[in-house]
Amino acid sequence: MDVLIIGGGGFIGRKLAERLACEGTVNGASIAKLTLHDIVPAASPRDAAFPIDVETGDLSVAGEADRLVAGKPELIFHLAAVVSGEAEQNFDKGYRINLDGTRHLLEAVREADYVPRLVFTSSIAVFGAPFPDAIPDDYHLTLLTSYGTQKAMDELMVNDFSRKGFVDGVSIRLPTVCVRPGKPNKAASGFFSGIIREPLAGEEAVCPVSRDVRHWMASPRSAVGFLLHAAALDAAELGAQRAITMPGLSITVGEMIDALARVAGEDVARRIKMQPDPFIEEIVAGWPRNFAPDRAQRLGFAADVDFDDVIRAHIADELDG
Amino acid sequence: MDVLIIGGGGFIGRKLAERLACEGTVNGASIAKLTLHDIVPAASPRDAAFPIDVETGDLSVAGEADRLVAGKPELIFHLAAVVSGEAEQNFDKGYRINLDGTRHLLEAVREADYVPRLVFTSSIAVFGAPFPDAIPDDYHLTLLTSYGTQKAMDELMVNDFSRKGFVDGVSIRLPTVCVRPGKPNKAASGFFSGIIREPLAGEEAVCPVSRDVRHWMASPRSAVGFLLHAAALDAAELGAQRAITMPGLSITVGEMIDALARVAGEDVARRIKMQPDPFIEEIVAGWPRNFAPDRAQRLGFAADVDFDDVIRAHIADELDG
Repeated sequence: MDVLIIGGGGFIGRKLAERLACEGTVNGASIAKLTLHDIVPAASPRDAAFPIDVETGDLSVAGEADRLVAGKPELIFHLAAVVSGEAEQNFDKGYRINLDGTRHLLEAVREADYVPRLVFTSSIAVFGAPFPDAIPDDYHLTLLTSYGTQKAMDELMVNDFSRKGFVDGVSIRLPTVCVRPGKPNKAASGFFSGIIREPLAGEEAVCPVSRDVRHWMASPRSAVGFLLHAAALDAAELGAQRAITMPGLSITVGEMIDALARVAGEDVARRIKMQPDPFIEEIVAGWPRNFAPDRAQRLGFAADVDFDDVIRAHIADELDG
Repeated sequence: MDVLIIGGGGFIGRKLAERLACEGTVNGASIAKLTLHDIVPAASPRDAAFPIDVETGDLSVAGEADRLVAGKPELIFHLAAVVSGEAEQNFDKGYRINLDGTRHLLEAVREADYVPRLVFTSSIAVFGAPFPDAIPDDYHLTLLTSYGTQKAMDELMVNDFSRKGFVDGVSIRLPTVCVRPGKPNKAASGFFSGIIREPLAGEEAVCPVSRDVRHWMASPRSAVGFLLHAAALDAAELGAQRAITMPGLSITVGEMIDALARVAGEDVARRIKMQPDPFIEEIVAGWPRNFAPDRAQRLGFAADVDFDDVIRAHIADELDG
């Protein structure tokens, strides 16, 4: 099977590529080739038993998507996006990358006249306040950002192109992925990872919201697991609604800090400085806190068990234990 | 006030223009000019006290929207669309007119750097089976057609452009408008009007579904009333979610036929021939039947009282009484 990862240079793309390289198979089939596409060259995983093509380009430029699907990869992961903070600051870029890029990909697949499984990463940003305590699967889209708007529009196109038989798509609404490794990005949710990542690396971290702020999170390991599970889903089980809210952990900032103290010690947890920032607090107040992701659970998606394990996984995967 | 109706040649656009010509004012302000835009020249209402410009063109062509908003009309009604049956048959045309056309309009307004009230006609086609008996305002979008997908994507853009302050938009989800005057169009819902309109005109009509099929309808008079009420809504009352399901009548085909017999006589009602068509029956089975449009009612939108009145209004407005 030929596999294409668009956005293969991002941190989830990299982890997904490493997992594919490690396993050598996907959906029970040997991987014949993996293509990693991104705006800059993606790092290839080491020790893969199959060839890896690294392609660079901008999916929103005419012809780029056609070039990528010319070889008819049977499985496509589309992770490329401008993140929430950047899409809010740069309105045109957000629509160009997040909406037009995805549309070009769908049109290119339709034009190539074959029906690959497409796993598209949407986001819980398609929901915003007001919402019930635990958002059910049939709750309406309540968008408070351009990023969320673009992801929701993409979900609708993935549904429609799938219904028409032009692609076999699944959109997974990822929780905030935490602990995100590497440097901070422009996502306004960055501090959720920062308050764990920086103290573990021996650095101070600023927490701009209070301990009682609740949010919906999944570890990078879980996110990669969701992508692979989505790749293997039976289309007959999906029906017309192909956007699925992923399971996650509903946890407060205070519970995160307590977990860090349990796993890494009180000294590490004390590196977090509580410095409320009204600007960030207001943004976060509009974010979803909890879901009832019944459909994902019925379809076999599995979330993290607790946040202590999420921290331990970060230590094992990113800090060499 | 300058008013622009895009899709001014359609039957709702025509009725809206006639109503504006009759009243001479909108939102309490005198109408200085009315522009009717459509793909073919729209008929001007007679006896208007203000000048009427009739413009022709394709909103999905680059530059057309910019041309239309160059004069900065303070109130824009956007009714132009490819209907459901045609959008399903011609996938590219549906996306071009229904998605790109609306996006061009929003971008043109943003570029013109002023903030008009935009009333966009969406549709109950953003909902499809499965759904609860009466669809609540917070129910998720369940699209079963390309037309519904495009309207839902437009709603999301209207929300986002409004949130950013680029436009002051309201999307109203119209029920199936019945009794639609004139010739049948390519909408799959056409028979709902046909079984009333044709018998009243002395002709036979075919009803392709059984008497117990239930649907959500509003008269043309109500539809025009919704447009004008939406034009006058206070943006502060709308919040971030600017798409509103309109009130309507939830009524069965049998009840429609009984109403026709009451208003026009048994002989007229007998001109309806029941000829079940499995193809149409299957499409209609996916359509919404009933809503709980609490938000619209709180915002002061008023539906028809009963279907007898809907028929009487059709006789008065279209058949010269």
